[in-house]
Amino acid sequence: MVLSLSGTKMAHASGIRSIMEDIATSMRGASTGSLLNLSIGNPAPIPEVVGTWRRLFDETLDASFARASCLYGPSRGTDDLVAAIVEYFSGRYGWPLTPEHVVVGSGSQMLSFVASAVFTGPGAARDTKTVLPALPDYTGYQGVYLFPGGVAGIAPRIELCGDRRFRYHLDLDALRRSDDIGLLLLSSPSNPTGRCVSPQELDALLEIAADRDVPIFFDHAYGSPFPQIVETPEPPRWHENIINVFTVSKAGLPGERIGFAVGDPRFIEPMVSFVANSTLHAGQLAQQVTARALATGELDRLTAEVIRPYYAHKRRLGEKLLADILPADVNWRLHAGTSGGMFCWVWVDEPWFDDRALYSRAKEKGVFLVPGRPFFTGEVAPAGFGRHDGRCFRISLSADEPVLTQGLERIAAALTELRDAA
Amino acid sequence: MVLSLSGTKMAHASGIRSIMEDIATSMRGASTGSLLNLSIGNPAPIPEVVGTWRRLFDETLDASFARASCLYGPSRGTDDLVAAIVEYFSGRYGWPLTPEHVVVGSGSQMLSFVASAVFTGPGAARDTKTVLPALPDYTGYQGVYLFPGGVAGIAPRIELCGDRRFRYHLDLDALRRSDDIGLLLLSSPSNPTGRCVSPQELDALLEIAADRDVPIFFDHAYGSPFPQIVETPEPPRWHENIINVFTVSKAGLPGERIGFAVGDPRFIEPMVSFVANSTLHAGQLAQQVTARALATGELDRLTAEVIRPYYAHKRRLGEKLLADILPADVNWRLHAGTSGGMFCWVWVDEPWFDDRALYSRAKEKGVFLVPGRPFFTGEVAPAGFGRHDGRCFRISLSADEPVLTQGLERIAAALTELRDAA
Repeated sequence: MVLSLSGTKMAHASGIRSIMEDIATSMRGASTGSLLNLSIGNPAPIPEVVGTWRRLFDETLDASFARASCLYGPSRGTDDLVAAIVEYFSGRYGWPLTPEHVVVGSGSQMLSFVASAVFTGPGAARDTKTVLPALPDYTGYQGVYLFPGGVAGIAPRIELCGDRRFRYHLDLDALRRSDDIGLLLLSSPSNPTGRCVSPQELDALLEIAADRDVPIFFDHAYGSPFPQIVETPEPPRWHENIINVFTVSKAGLPGERIGFAVGDPRFIEPMVSFVANSTLHAGQLAQQVTARALATGELDRLTAEVIRPYYAHKRRLGEKLLADILPADVNWRLHAGTSGGMFCWVWVDEPWFDDRALYSRAKEKGVFLVPGRPFFTGEVAPAGFGRHDGRCFRISLSADEPVLTQGLERIAAALTELRDAA
Repeated sequence: MVLSLSGTKMAHASGIRSIMEDIATSMRGASTGSLLNLSIGNPAPIPEVVGTWRRLFDETLDASFARASCLYGPSRGTDDLVAAIVEYFSGRYGWPLTPEHVVVGSGSQMLSFVASAVFTGPGAARDTKTVLPALPDYTGYQGVYLFPGGVAGIAPRIELCGDRRFRYHLDLDALRRSDDIGLLLLSSPSNPTGRCVSPQELDALLEIAADRDVPIFFDHAYGSPFPQIVETPEPPRWHENIINVFTVSKAGLPGERIGFAVGDPRFIEPMVSFVANSTLHAGQLAQQVTARALATGELDRLTAEVIRPYYAHKRRLGEKLLADILPADVNWRLHAGTSGGMFCWVWVDEPWFDDRALYSRAKEKGVFLVPGRPFFTGEVAPAGFGRHDGRCFRISLSADEPVLTQGLERIAAALTELRDAA
């Protein structure tokens, strides 16, 4: 059996996936509570959130089961969901939308895969890449391009902020030097850092995108208008070079894989065709549930009253626990500034520190975290960036407070041991 | 904006899709009942089938909503569904299955797309194609390969059977001459013909597949063990070169996009990785519903007691109506023999006949059918095959009896007009 080039690339389990499988295997065999998981990518199972979605499913089954589940449907998305998206974003932001501006996919992961396959790769005139302008960024972006070498990530510039904080800045000059951009792809607030692209940075990205005539795939998985896990919400921008991408995953429904993209029809139409050719359409019951969540205002209510306050509290808690628990004599720093998302991103700026060594040591102590390297996909780093990408780790704010506290205590012990062994 | 090669290919709406959009647009604007649709690809909305799936959804929501819908899950498929598949096929056919033999996808369309991307296309040593050994075959296979020219279809040989019947045979010699096979892809019973690959033909296909060390993607959408819309059911074959692919779409749940592939882990593992990289996993509530349908025996019950008898009746009805209604002095023939599926495939062997002309004339008379050409994907036809591929059309047995009767009457009138105008 021979795999094709795309098969060879896509059959490759990314670094993060091996880690996640290691964690899943370990957790499965463990007695309840003995292992602590701070690697979680799932949103917290907040009872009010779970209960609301459950009610929306019951109502949707009553309203449209036979039509949704027992018939094929349009590849763009169900008429009800597309109409709900048009109405929601027109009403909330005044965007000039028609159904032609919308495509629904089986999750935003799939939409980023589709955009990457449509806008990048071997071309008639020249080959282009999926470019990540805001490293470190979501590890799933490793999965989306079809050919080896099809991605390039721009290393960030680092600003130290006081004793225990730091911030990344986009290296726009490095991005401008890229001559093979087919698609700009980023999450904001970012997984893993929580960093939000500023309006000024977005202006600069748009100038580059317009100059190259390529789309920016802007992944709002944690941002506005839902689930709005962000300190200072910015409305998504309407621009002919932006594909704005939204999902209900982090608002509580990750298992159903519903995401949608809103943008200029010249970008959206080929994506609709790709969805039609590759999967026909996304699952329709969950589409109808999403339409109902948008149209009834329940998604906005969950966002404002439950999800946003929950993560704001968890973020403050995480910051306090890090300060209280991590060793005072280790030079660790938390990414901060305009922030959001479900994670804390910690940089340990010590020559003896290695993210994979911490992962292993922490695992021995019964706590899982995510090492930083896999978030630096396709990194093109300038001289002097050094070993920064191997000196970070991510912990999840979805974990319960006792798990977070004990988990950080074990991580602190692991850090101390690593330092003492150096 | 520039699309990449894969973008250009995948952004192309296949011939059938333009037709289906034409039909959807026309039906949407029409008053109820004035337009008759014999182009339907949906399974018939049999109340007992719809009601059973609805009950399974209710039960599944009660049993596992939070776990299924509110958490990410494994890319191979939910533990429950993978276990149910292993148990079902081990028990029913004695296959030596483990979870490593299984991958769940967002419908069998997606699985054929994944297999095509993994096993065919530009390669390190040489380029290979998705080869359709049993034309005419499902038009959706036009969508699954990523690059222009990535498909080749083998034209069938034709056997006349009495006055009003004919059968296709695989041209195995032509297939053996193909030197760039990466994947063999076929549906059996076939959409559109209902033709089933015979055990002897499968032996020959397997010899070719084993010789080339490539997989056969065997699409059982209409076959055994469910929905078993077939005259003489054959069990699916277990062989190291077959990927057996099943779906619940034609058993009543097309809107939810659940399909799964069962085969040798050397084929399945890269497909699992592709699913992980491109979409994370299929929607999990519908996966859990499918697991329940398999494990409780409800899917077998629907198949045996409801779906199979329904289509057996509709097939007999369709044959009778064709004989009663189509013009006696037109040389039309129905594909017959080992048969199944949801359609009647009619060949009009007259020099004046053209499938697209019939489509247009029938549309004027308020009835929709599907012209035959799009089913001959990537056809490599031998000299003498002539214009056969433009002289066929497909009608659906999912339509109600009055619609089928009136629709065929209008088609008969259209045929007469076309002949008289020639």
